[in-house]
Amino acid sequence: MRKIAVLGPGLLGGSIALAVQQKMPETRVAIWARRKEAVDELRRNGILGEASSDLEPIVSDAELVIFCVPIGAMQDLANVAVQFISENAVITDVGSVKAPVVETLGEIFRSGKFIGSHPIAGSERSGIEAARADLFENANCMITPTGPASPADVTALSQFWLRLGCNVRSVTPVEHDEIMALVSHLPHLLAAALVNLVCAQNADSLNCSGNGFRDATRVASGPPEMWSEILLTNRHALKKSIDAMSDQLHRAAKMLDQNQGHEMQEFLAAAKNHRDVLRPIS
Amino acid sequence: MRKIAVLGPGLLGGSIALAVQQKMPETRVAIWARRKEAVDELRRNGILGEASSDLEPIVSDAELVIFCVPIGAMQDLANVAVQFISENAVITDVGSVKAPVVETLGEIFRSGKFIGSHPIAGSERSGIEAARADLFENANCMITPTGPASPADVTALSQFWLRLGCNVRSVTPVEHDEIMALVSHLPHLLAAALVNLVCAQNADSLNCSGNGFRDATRVASGPPEMWSEILLTNRHALKKSIDAMSDQLHRAAKMLDQNQGHEMQEFLAAAKNHRDVLRPIS
Repeated sequence: MRKIAVLGPGLLGGSIALAVQQKMPETRVAIWARRKEAVDELRRNGILGEASSDLEPIVSDAELVIFCVPIGAMQDLANVAVQFISENAVITDVGSVKAPVVETLGEIFRSGKFIGSHPIAGSERSGIEAARADLFENANCMITPTGPASPADVTALSQFWLRLGCNVRSVTPVEHDEIMALVSHLPHLLAAALVNLVCAQNADSLNCSGNGFRDATRVASGPPEMWSEILLTNRHALKKSIDAMSDQLHRAAKMLDQNQGHEMQEFLAAAKNHRDVLRPIS
Repeated sequence: MRKIAVLGPGLLGGSIALAVQQKMPETRVAIWARRKEAVDELRRNGILGEASSDLEPIVSDAELVIFCVPIGAMQDLANVAVQFISENAVITDVGSVKAPVVETLGEIFRSGKFIGSHPIAGSERSGIEAARADLFENANCMITPTGPASPADVTALSQFWLRLGCNVRSVTPVEHDEIMALVSHLPHLLAAALVNLVCAQNADSLNCSGNGFRDATRVASGPPEMWSEILLTNRHALKKSIDAMSDQLHRAAKMLDQNQGHEMQEFLAAAKNHRDVLRPIS
């Protein structure tokens, strides 16, 4: 690939640029940023390629265009970008919810060249300052090709994420959203609810907490605006996950009520068995 | 202090022994282990002092005796140890639930020399192999003196935990148990319930999870037998915390149902504000 365009210089966009610089020396990376000042911030953070707040020069000769803006900003940006993007370019995004994004962008890029992506990478930190060239190493990345996507384009997109160090798997947009409701969106909501609960009941107890509480609630430090958008965009799948979680808690509460040590031990042992085999991520 | 006796060579007992060796060179540490083989394991893990499966020589001349066995094993061990422990010795434990332990051991050690402790340290790992001399550095430690405790003994116990690197605070046993229900026992149950929920709904989605899920569920890898005992021993306070958590989830579910972006953003921002100021722990 000769040129990749990254639209949006946040944690993911910045990390993609750094990773391409490091791992794909044959490829130029160009970044579009809405704010002119962001172009200088890129330089300060080690991102050396072309950068501009003008879309046309960034996207017009790119072979891969990656939307790295918040979900709510994608449609407007795509409506402008569509007129400059080459008809041979593959287009993707990194949004945390896929069905609505794939539908919206699929309608704008009628060529069938849009294929959704979601690299499960990042942290509670955000912005270009948190960007890292190794952010994608060992990360799981889901791509969500739909009917119109050509096998060649799906392969090119997979290859790109593989070069960045990801494990790639292909799922439908709806499957993606159900999976994320379980392993990302529900855990995020639980972490925030847990912090709010502790503060409401006894804020001082935060000062008595240990590493268990810190780790369990780390994701609650993520950016509220971005996460609110993600949770609401995936609200139907998330709502089902919350209901299922309530059932689990109800089950555990019953064991406590009835002082069922054996059942509780089995409940915890089942969780431990599954958790212990989770593959470490760098 | 000339001699400290540690009863039980697990993660906490082993780490206390290592920490005393390193930070209190004037003090001998002696360890009692139920199993004879455990004595050899201590040597292999760098714990050099006296060790035996015979209680009397370990405790008889100790100035501080620390029960580091599981909660359910404390009463029987205390009933044997009481005949060998010097009447001048301060006695404590490291159990994760305090009210029932303080009541039981307070009745056995009628001298009023028993004062409960709970260093909030440890990890999902257990056993002597996971012991570390720096486990207590920067950790919060609660002590729970009750009526009969003398100020001199309370000070001596505080000083001990301070020497090991802890931040020490004094609370009542009931306050301790309510705090722990919020910041440790509920998070543990949530982590286990989350893993079990994901496996029940779509076990394959574990393979699509990222660091957020790993951190949120880390504590679920803790030893099931020990945690089942902790959760059931503190079941009344924990039950209240589960009910409060259900209320929080209900509140969040309503925001999703009604697509309330502003409210969700405030919910997440409140959690972020509180989580961001949590002091780092080594």
